[in-house]
Amino acid sequence: MNGLVTQPRLITLEGGEGAGKSTVLNALRDALMATGAEVVCTREPGGTPLAERIRELLLDPSHEPASAETELLLMFAARAQHVRETLLPALQRNAWVLSDRFTGSSFAYQGGGRGLDPALIAELERRFVVVRPGLTLLLDLGVQQGRERTRGRDLVPDRIERERDEFFERVRAAYLARAGAEPERMRVIDASASAEDVALRATTLLQHYIEHGL
Amino acid sequence: MNGLVTQPRLITLEGGEGAGKSTVLNALRDALMATGAEVVCTREPGGTPLAERIRELLLDPSHEPASAETELLLMFAARAQHVRETLLPALQRNAWVLSDRFTGSSFAYQGGGRGLDPALIAELERRFVVVRPGLTLLLDLGVQQGRERTRGRDLVPDRIERERDEFFERVRAAYLARAGAEPERMRVIDASASAEDVALRATTLLQHYIEHGL
Ligand SMILES: Nc1ncnc2c1ncn2[C@@H]1O[C@H](COP(=O)(O)OP(=O)(O)OP(=O)(O)O)[C@@H](O)[C@H]1O
Ligand SMILES: Nc1ncnc2c1ncn2[C@@H]1O[C@H](COP(=O)(O)OP(=O)(O)OP(=O)(O)O)[C@@H](O)[C@H]1O
Ligand SMILES: [Mg+2]
Ligand SMILES: [Mg+2]
Repeated sequence: MNGLVTQPRLITLEGGEGAGKSTVLNALRDALMATGAEVVCTREPGGTPLAERIRELLLDPSHEPASAETELLLMFAARAQHVRETLLPALQRNAWVLSDRFTGSSFAYQGGGRGLDPALIAELERRFVVVRPGLTLLLDLGVQQGRERTRGRDLVPDRIERERDEFFERVRAAYLARAGAEPERMRVIDASASAEDVALRATTLLQHYIEHGL
Repeated sequence: MNGLVTQPRLITLEGGEGAGKSTVLNALRDALMATGAEVVCTREPGGTPLAERIRELLLDPSHEPASAETELLLMFAARAQHVRETLLPALQRNAWVLSDRFTGSSFAYQGGGRGLDPALIAELERRFVVVRPGLTLLLDLGVQQGRERTRGRDLVPDRIERERDEFFERVRAAYLARAGAEPERMRVIDASASAEDVALRATTLLQHYIEHGL
């Protein structure tokens, strides 16, 4: 339809800083491993040696700030590499792939946060990413709550963590708008619940997805 | 027309390895400086601290090879930064800008060399580069001659220098095709002549360009 190939075994976690993506990823990994399936856990930006080096450039506050356009292109450079080197080989051998962030983060951060045109981001997705996750879980959390959860963890905040609250409010709104527009593959989880409740909600959704689809 | 803004004071040098771009750039710089004008000399990939770090990633053979798509996006990430941080500020204060490689290199190397669709590259140019040089000099040289000129200079060949001759033949052909298609801003210089003759040809073309346009 739009040239993107949906990959049912590609599941991505999205959400703001401290929303609980890494925590939920571990719970989903355990649930999938219990079925005996191969599970590849990965993250963005990153997921290959070169893509991790691009991540370092993106987050390193020691050089001049990247323009919004530069940031967008670096994100998609890392993603193009990640898809070709890590995701497609894993999906081809029928593994499940769990990714902590994926294209959804670009729509939220470079689109909502930085104000770049979503049509431009969609064009890069179509041209360079090609695959789309069968399931994306959006962990939705208030900006302040996210900050409280990560407080003390990051001694030196990276380039993106240094942004102001309004930036993260725009990120959150863009995430929610996108989830509303793509109910066939996205689910929002209220991430303000306890870690146990959030993990249970996520694994229940996963179970349903495996058995009946979304 | 195509959304690109031609910048008369932006002059770029293109050509294969060892064709003499750096040598000609110095000659043009001297000729422009003799008029009393400000001249900014820069290069791609690179031209800002962040863009130079992207260049390192592109040329470093220590991580896995970048896919053609990743390479293209990294080139445009560096270029987007270079345009916004270095070229536009210089052009705005009416300086001349001489760049050792620019968008033409992407059409030649990622297009001709790697086989990516020129329409895709043109789309990235339109969306992320926006500016187009008023004058581009293509230094055309046989692949073997270029290799002989740089022999011994590079102890450890970088990622791109490691490519085979057929790759550089495709690069050369793509460059020539583009020069043929854009006579209003490109000129081909036979770079097999002596360094003095090539520099003289380049400065004569520059003189004519300044006085009468191309
Ligand atoms: N539902 C929850 N309730 C309370 N604390 C939580 C919850 N989920 C995770 N946490 C804790 O909040 C912190 C952030 O969680 P986590 O690292 O999983 O978030 P994240 O979305 O991966 O963050 P980042 O974007 O920084 O990677 C961790 O200390 C984690 O133990
Ligand atoms: N016309 C020429 N005839 C002979 N030698 C030349 C000529 N022009 C440049 N050289 C020499 O060839 C070598 C390559 O020239 P130069 O560095 O200017 O090329 P370049 O296009 O910038 O190469 P690279 O792509 O590697 O940066 C240098 O040693 C230079 O002195
Ligand atoms: Mg995390
Ligand atoms: Mg040179």
